[in-house]
Amino acid sequence: MKFGSYNQIHDSIRQSVDRFNINDDFKPDLMIAIGGGGFIPARILRTFLKKTSRGNIPIQAIGLSLYEELANANGEEKPGTQVQKTQWLNFGASHSEISLLGRRILIVDEVDDTRTTLAFAVEELQKDIEAEEIRKGMKPGESNTVLGIFVLHNKLKTKKRDLPEEIKKNYFAAVEMPDQWLVYPWDAVDIEEHTELANKHQ
Amino acid sequence: MKFGSYNQIHDSIRQSVDRFNINDDFKPDLMIAIGGGGFIPARILRTFLKKTSRGNIPIQAIGLSLYEELANANGEEKPGTQVQKTQWLNFGASHSEISLLGRRILIVDEVDDTRTTLAFAVEELQKDIEAEEIRKGMKPGESNTVLGIFVLHNKLKTKKRDLPEEIKKNYFAAVEMPDQWLVYPWDAVDIEEHTELANKHQ
Repeated sequence: MKFGSYNQIHDSIRQSVDRFNINDDFKPDLMIAIGGGGFIPARILRTFLKKTSRGNIPIQAIGLSLYEELANANGEEKPGTQVQKTQWLNFGASHSEISLLGRRILIVDEVDDTRTTLAFAVEELQKDIEAEEIRKGMKPGESNTVLGIFVLHNKLKTKKRDLPEEIKKNYFAAVEMPDQWLVYPWDAVDIEEHTELANKHQ
Repeated sequence: MKFGSYNQIHDSIRQSVDRFNINDDFKPDLMIAIGGGGFIPARILRTFLKKTSRGNIPIQAIGLSLYEELANANGEEKPGTQVQKTQWLNFGASHSEISLLGRRILIVDEVDDTRTTLAFAVEELQKDIEAEEIRKGMKPGESNTVLGIFVLHNKLKTKKRDLPEEIKKNYFAAVEMPDQWLVYPWDAVDIEEHTELANKHQ
């Protein structure tokens, strides 16, 4: 069991931005936070990312939830392998000026556990990017849109899904850790007790 | 100048849920976080809200940004009174099952300063609710959808915009404070120094 305090997490984000040289190498200009887990990491990360000419790096949110697949014809179950969108980006709607094309996009989440949610998010965003390219008369890939991933914790374990090679090049985990139970400070009912546990076992 | 530590903020959210009896009186079943400021408060708040039969209270995100209005015909400027949507909810889209009708919705933000953004969010959500009611053959208001507001800090000052009376009944500020500059922990570059300042002046 691993406890992380707010300050430890805040600091591990700061350190990883330097360690991976994210501002000068990846140069993100858009974050897509996977809610609710990615909201806090994305908001903290924004503090350490260089501003663009238009100000802070914008954060768009998407909602994804893993659900249990019903037993299939053979009676087998594949728990937690299906992902459902609960919120997605608004593109091309009258109230949105967001375009993905030509952007350097960092997908942000809390933890990379089985990798199911992240792989789904990447796949769906790649579809959106291609659809937007085609809509604008481009060939697939022509817009040079780049996707990367930032997670607080990557659990070192066998993953259920893989990521495309070009995404793996832009994969940033603030902390790599063994496959153990993780308690985030935002889930703590007693935050003082949680912080003590985090400081004791860090 | 006021500094808040993560733990102070986490705890003030816990306390305010009790103080306002939010779980038993307002009984929220959906949060709408105004990004990026509302992301962290909403995620922490979820920990202290009662689960529904379907699990954690879902968080939907909207993006709003204040922009400076260009000088009008009389050459007057009204800085910071115009709001632009940078992200909105997806309704009725094939990938979304979200309906606002009959929900008890808590709009969540970081700070209520001039009240411009909050008033805009309320107005736009009310329009969406009415449009959905009409689409489903109801009269405006017939769905009994309820809106409330949760903010970390309410600055006690003259507001530029007002809120409808029925919203004011469901207005929850974790902390009321004088009109002074506020530094959130997620904006701190040096989190240890920030936490010391917050603990010293609390």
